[in-house]
Amino acid sequence: MARVASSPFCAAVDWGTSSFRLWLLDGEGEVLAESRSHEGMMHCASSGFAPVLNAHLRAVGADGTLPVMICGMAGARQGWVEAAYALAPTRLADLAAGAVAVPDPAREIRILPGIAQEDAQAPNVMRGEETQLLGGMPGASDALACMPGTHSKWVTVAGGAVRRFDTFMTGELFSVLARHSILKHAVDGEGQGIAPDHPAFLAALDRTLETPSGALADLFGVRAAQLLGHEQRADGAAHLSGLLIGAELAAARARHAGVNEVVLIASGGIAELYLSALKRCGFEVETVDAEMASRRGLHLCARQLWGTS
Amino acid sequence: MARVASSPFCAAVDWGTSSFRLWLLDGEGEVLAESRSHEGMMHCASSGFAPVLNAHLRAVGADGTLPVMICGMAGARQGWVEAAYALAPTRLADLAAGAVAVPDPAREIRILPGIAQEDAQAPNVMRGEETQLLGGMPGASDALACMPGTHSKWVTVAGGAVRRFDTFMTGELFSVLARHSILKHAVDGEGQGIAPDHPAFLAALDRTLETPSGALADLFGVRAAQLLGHEQRADGAAHLSGLLIGAELAAARARHAGVNEVVLIASGGIAELYLSALKRCGFEVETVDAEMASRRGLHLCARQLWGTS
Repeated sequence: MARVASSPFCAAVDWGTSSFRLWLLDGEGEVLAESRSHEGMMHCASSGFAPVLNAHLRAVGADGTLPVMICGMAGARQGWVEAAYALAPTRLADLAAGAVAVPDPAREIRILPGIAQEDAQAPNVMRGEETQLLGGMPGASDALACMPGTHSKWVTVAGGAVRRFDTFMTGELFSVLARHSILKHAVDGEGQGIAPDHPAFLAALDRTLETPSGALADLFGVRAAQLLGHEQRADGAAHLSGLLIGAELAAARARHAGVNEVVLIASGGIAELYLSALKRCGFEVETVDAEMASRRGLHLCARQLWGTS
Repeated sequence: MARVASSPFCAAVDWGTSSFRLWLLDGEGEVLAESRSHEGMMHCASSGFAPVLNAHLRAVGADGTLPVMICGMAGARQGWVEAAYALAPTRLADLAAGAVAVPDPAREIRILPGIAQEDAQAPNVMRGEETQLLGGMPGASDALACMPGTHSKWVTVAGGAVRRFDTFMTGELFSVLARHSILKHAVDGEGQGIAPDHPAFLAALDRTLETPSGALADLFGVRAAQLLGHEQRADGAAHLSGLLIGAELAAARARHAGVNEVVLIASGGIAELYLSALKRCGFEVETVDAEMASRRGLHLCARQLWGTS
C-alpha cells in the first residue's frame, strides 16, 4: 500500500564548520526531501548565511513561511547569529528553550545553543553534538556517548542532562599529520576506506591500548616502518589511524573507569572503525546513526517550539 | 697574549633536512670560520649538493684539498650519497669507519652513517643525532640522552654504544597544530620565546605529567580556554608547548623507569624549556650544547680518518 504523502512541518538544518545539510521533515520527522553542500560556516562567514539557506529551501520546494530549526556552527560567535552556550550540566530537553531567533520578515528561524563546560581545568565547548545527543538517545537518560569525528566528543549524560565532556582532536590530528608532517610521505589519503580488521590498524590499536603513553613515541614509527621495509605505504593510513584512535580510547577508558557500555553516534566508515576499536577496548557498544540523530534532535526541538502536526 | 693562528684541518658539515652548517676547524677542533644557510636536503634534492658545499667552502676560504666530514640527511636515500644505516646496538666509536666516500676529483668528502633500530615493534631511524652523541658525551659510556627538536630523540647509550632509541614528533606536532589545525586561532608563532616559567606552560606540563593520557584530550582545551575567557591568545603557544613536552616526558619517564639522570643535548630557547620540564619531571640534568656536540662529533670522526694535526 502506498504511503499517503504528508505535508512539510519544518526544515531541519545541521550547519557545520564546512558542511551544510537541510532536511524537509513532516510532523512525524519523516524526510520529505533533502539538500546538502559544502557551504559551511567558513564559506558563509564572508558570503552571508541567508542566501545559502534560502537557496537550499527553494531546492527542496519549501514554502515561504515554513519554520527552520538550525544547529551547529551557524550559532557560533563568528557564525550567523550567536546562540549563547548553555552551561553544563544542562538538560537536553531544555535546548529548544535556549534557541535564538534569527530576524526574518516571513518565517520563524531558530538556532539552537551549543554547550560549554566552564571548568578552568578542562574548559570545553560543543556545537551540534548536543542536538545529536538529544536525538540519538531520547530514551536513555544515563549514558556515555562516543561521537567520533574531526573533534571527537565523549559525553557523560546523566538524568537526561549533559554532565561532562571531553574533546579529542583525533580526526584533525590524522588530517594535519597526513597532509603537513613528515608522515605525508607514509600516508595516503584522508583515512577513508580503512578496513576495521586491517592488520596495521589492529596492531597499532592494540599496542596503544596496552601502553597508552606510547602513542606519541610511535607516530614516527609510521614512517620508520616503511623506511626499514616492515610496512608499505598502503598500510600507513591504517597504522596512523590505529595509533590515534587507540590513544583516544585509552584516555577515555581511563577517564570513565567502571563504565562498560558506550553509545556510539557515528556514520559510515568511521562508525565501523570505532565499533571495532571500542569492542577491542572491552566496551559493549550500541550504535546510533549520526545523521539520523541530528535530524531527530532538530525535529524534537521544532515540535517543542511549534507544536505537533 | 694573542693566540697563534692555527691552520685548517677539515671542514665539518651538519647537513639537515632544512638547514646547512659548515665549520672550518683546526686540528684541535677550534672554529676558524663558519658558514650557514637554509640549503638543507630538501633544497639540494633538486638543485644539487656539490654546488652548495663548494660555495660554502669558498665562503670560509677553504683550500681545494681540505677534507670534508658530513653528517645528517645528506646521507639519506633521497640525499647526496646514501650512507647505509649502522644497526643498533652500535658503538659510537665505529661511526667513522662506516662513512661513505663522495667521489670528488680534488678532496676527501665523507658522509657519516645514521643509525637504524631494526625492531618490528619499534622501528626507528636517526641521522645526525648519532654524531651529536659522539661529540656530546665522549666521556660518558652509559647515559640517557634527551635531544629535543622537530623530532626529539631519547637515546640509551650503554658501554659507548647506542642501544635503543625513541623518536617523539614533538616539535613537528607543535608546528602542524599551530599552523594547520583549529588551534591556529589560539596559538601565535612557532613557539620561540616561551618563558620556561610561563604559568600556562607549567600548568599544562604539570597536568600532563600527572595524567599522561590526558594530553590528547587537553589539546582542544587550548582553544576552548580562550573561547571561554580563561586564557588569552598570548598564552596559547606556552599552553600547547606544555601539553606536548609533558606528553613526551611522561612517555619517556615510563620507558626509562628507574633512570634519574639525563644528558640534555640542546641549544637556545628549547634547551631552557626542556631543562625546566625535565627538572619538574624529577630528572637530574646535565646540559650539552647541541651545535658544539655536532661539531665535536664531526671533528672526532675526521681525526679518526685523517690523523691528527
